[in-house]
Amino acid sequence: MHDEYVLGADVGGTNLRIAAVAADGTILHEVSSPTPKTAPAQGVIDEIVSAAQKCVEELADSPRPKSFGLALAALVNPTVGRILRAPNLPQLDDLQLVDIVSDALGLDVVIENDATAAAIGEHWLGSSRATRNSVFVTLGTGVGGGLILEGRPYRGEDGTAGEIGHICVEPDGVPCGCGSHGCVEQYASATAIVRIAKELAGSDPTSSLAGKSELTSLAIYEAGVAGDRVAQQTFATMGRYLGIALAGLVDVLNPGLIVIGGGPAGAWDLFIEHVRTEINERAFQHPSKSVRLVRASLGGSAGILGAARLAFDSLQPRAQAESSLY
Amino acid sequence: MHDEYVLGADVGGTNLRIAAVAADGTILHEVSSPTPKTAPAQGVIDEIVSAAQKCVEELADSPRPKSFGLALAALVNPTVGRILRAPNLPQLDDLQLVDIVSDALGLDVVIENDATAAAIGEHWLGSSRATRNSVFVTLGTGVGGGLILEGRPYRGEDGTAGEIGHICVEPDGVPCGCGSHGCVEQYASATAIVRIAKELAGSDPTSSLAGKSELTSLAIYEAGVAGDRVAQQTFATMGRYLGIALAGLVDVLNPGLIVIGGGPAGAWDLFIEHVRTEINERAFQHPSKSVRLVRASLGGSAGILGAARLAFDSLQPRAQAESSLY
Repeated sequence: MHDEYVLGADVGGTNLRIAAVAADGTILHEVSSPTPKTAPAQGVIDEIVSAAQKCVEELADSPRPKSFGLALAALVNPTVGRILRAPNLPQLDDLQLVDIVSDALGLDVVIENDATAAAIGEHWLGSSRATRNSVFVTLGTGVGGGLILEGRPYRGEDGTAGEIGHICVEPDGVPCGCGSHGCVEQYASATAIVRIAKELAGSDPTSSLAGKSELTSLAIYEAGVAGDRVAQQTFATMGRYLGIALAGLVDVLNPGLIVIGGGPAGAWDLFIEHVRTEINERAFQHPSKSVRLVRASLGGSAGILGAARLAFDSLQPRAQAESSLY
Repeated sequence: MHDEYVLGADVGGTNLRIAAVAADGTILHEVSSPTPKTAPAQGVIDEIVSAAQKCVEELADSPRPKSFGLALAALVNPTVGRILRAPNLPQLDDLQLVDIVSDALGLDVVIENDATAAAIGEHWLGSSRATRNSVFVTLGTGVGGGLILEGRPYRGEDGTAGEIGHICVEPDGVPCGCGSHGCVEQYASATAIVRIAKELAGSDPTSSLAGKSELTSLAIYEAGVAGDRVAQQTFATMGRYLGIALAGLVDVLNPGLIVIGGGPAGAWDLFIEHVRTEINERAFQHPSKSVRLVRASLGGSAGILGAARLAFDSLQPRAQAESSLY
C-alpha cells in the first residue's frame, strides 16, 4: 500500500513514541512505551531500537522504512548527529546517537530537538504551513521553541537555536533549572501556572483553589472558566510574561506567525488577550500588526511528523534538498 | 581608474553621508552634509539627491555609478522600497523613497535600515566576515541591531527584523520612546549611560561626576578609567542589562558572533566583562561557549559600506545574487 515510508520518533522524559509515516504525512502505525528514565544510556538506546523494530514488524505488508528521524527533548547538534545536553535524560549527554542507532537498525538516522521538530511538523502540515517566518512555542513542564526562518528550520551555529523558554522576563525573578533567574519558563509553563496559582490562592481564601495541594494547569483553567478570580489572575500573569518574551521576538524576528502549542495552550481564551496586549504595547507597530497568534494544530504528533519530514528530506541529494522546503 | 562603482549613503538624524564605493569596498570619495531635520520630506529628498550628484561630480575621471544603496535610521521595507517609520525624520514616514530617488537620479536604488546595513558592512569587510550567524549591536542615542543568519541579512516578514534595542529587560522599568517600558535601549544606549551616571552620582557626592550637568558617555568612561566608582558602577549596570538581552539572543539564535559597535562600545573594557558574566550565567552552556563578543571594526563607515554592498548585489541577475553572499 505504502511503498515508501519513514520512521519518526519523539523521545520525551516520560514517553517514547515511534510512528511509520508516509510521504504525505499520514501516520501508518504508531507504537509507544515509557521512556526508561533511570536506565543507563544503552537501556534507552535499546528501547528506541526495539520500539522501532516493533513498529516496522507490526506494519505487516510494507517494506523497510527508508530512513529514521528522531526528535528528543534535548539540545542536539543535528549536523554532526550528537546529543549535546539532555536535562531529562542526562545519561544521553554527549552521545553520538545517530551513529549508534543507525548501526543497530541498518538505517540512515537524523536527530533534532523536539520543539524544533514540532515547528517543522507544524510548518509541513499544520498551523504555519503557508508562513515563511514563524516562531513555534510549546508550553509544557517547561517552555520550548523552534524557529522557521525564510521557510527553513533555523538552528544556529551548533543546532541549539530556538530556546525561547529562557528569555529573561524578570532579571531578579524566580530561579530556573537552567541556572538563570526570571526565565519566561518560570512564568508560562504548566509548572509555573500551578506555582503562581498556589501563591495567589494563598492570600485569597475565597478562591476555589485555596488549600488545594494537587493542582494542575487544567484544573486551574476550569476554575477560571467557572469564574474563579485567582485562576483568571494566574493566566493573566502567565499571559503577561509570555507576551513580554514574545514582544521581544516580534521586534527581533518580525515573524508572520507565532504558533503556540502544548497542554496549557488549551487555556487559550484565558491568557491570549494578555499576550496580545503586551505585544501591542511593547513591540513596534509594523511587526506587531503583522504577527498573528495561533494555536498549534497537530497536537502531540507535531514532533513525530517533523522528525519524519526531516527523515524524508535526508533521502534527497543535497542540492535537491537545499532547493526543497528544508 | 575605477570603472565600476556604486553610491552608498547613510542618512541619520544628524548627518547625511554619501560615498562612491568600489567593488572591493574601497571608498573612492565621500561627501557629507547636515540632515535637514526640520525640512519637509521633499527637502530631505532634495538634499539626498544633490549630495549624490555632488559625490559623482567630484569623482572626476569616473563614469556614472552603477546603482545607489541608501541606509536610513528608520524601519524600512527593502523589498517594496518603502520607509515604514522614521522616528527621527517623521516627515519620511510611509514614503516610497526608492522610486522617488531613482526617478530623480536615473539610477537603480535600494534602501535598508541603517543598523542592518552596518551588519552587512561588517559581514562583508569587518568583524563578522567569516561568521555564518551573527548579531550586530550598535550603541548610540538608541540601541539598534541587525542580524546575519545563514550568511544572509535576515529581515523578517516586513523588513523590520533586528530591532534588538526594544527587548524588555525590566518589565516595569524606565519608559521608552517606543511606548514600552524597560527596553534594553533605556539601559545600554549613550543616553541611558548618562542618565544612570547622574542617578548614581546624585547619591554619591564623592564622585568626580557629582553635580556635573553636561555629562557624556565618553566623559563617564574617562572618569571610570581614572578610578571613579560611580562611573564604573554605571558601566557595570549598562553591561548587566545589555548582557541580559544578549543572553536571550544567544539562546534563541545560537550565533557564532555578537559584534558591538557605536560610540559607547569604546568603553569596552569597562562593560564587556559584565555582559559576558550575564551570558555565561543565563544562557545555555553550549551556545554560550560558542559565541564570541567582538568590537565592530568599520566604525562609522559600516552603514555606507553595507548599503554599497546591497547596491552591488542588486546589479546581479536574481539567481546569481541568490547564490552570492547575499
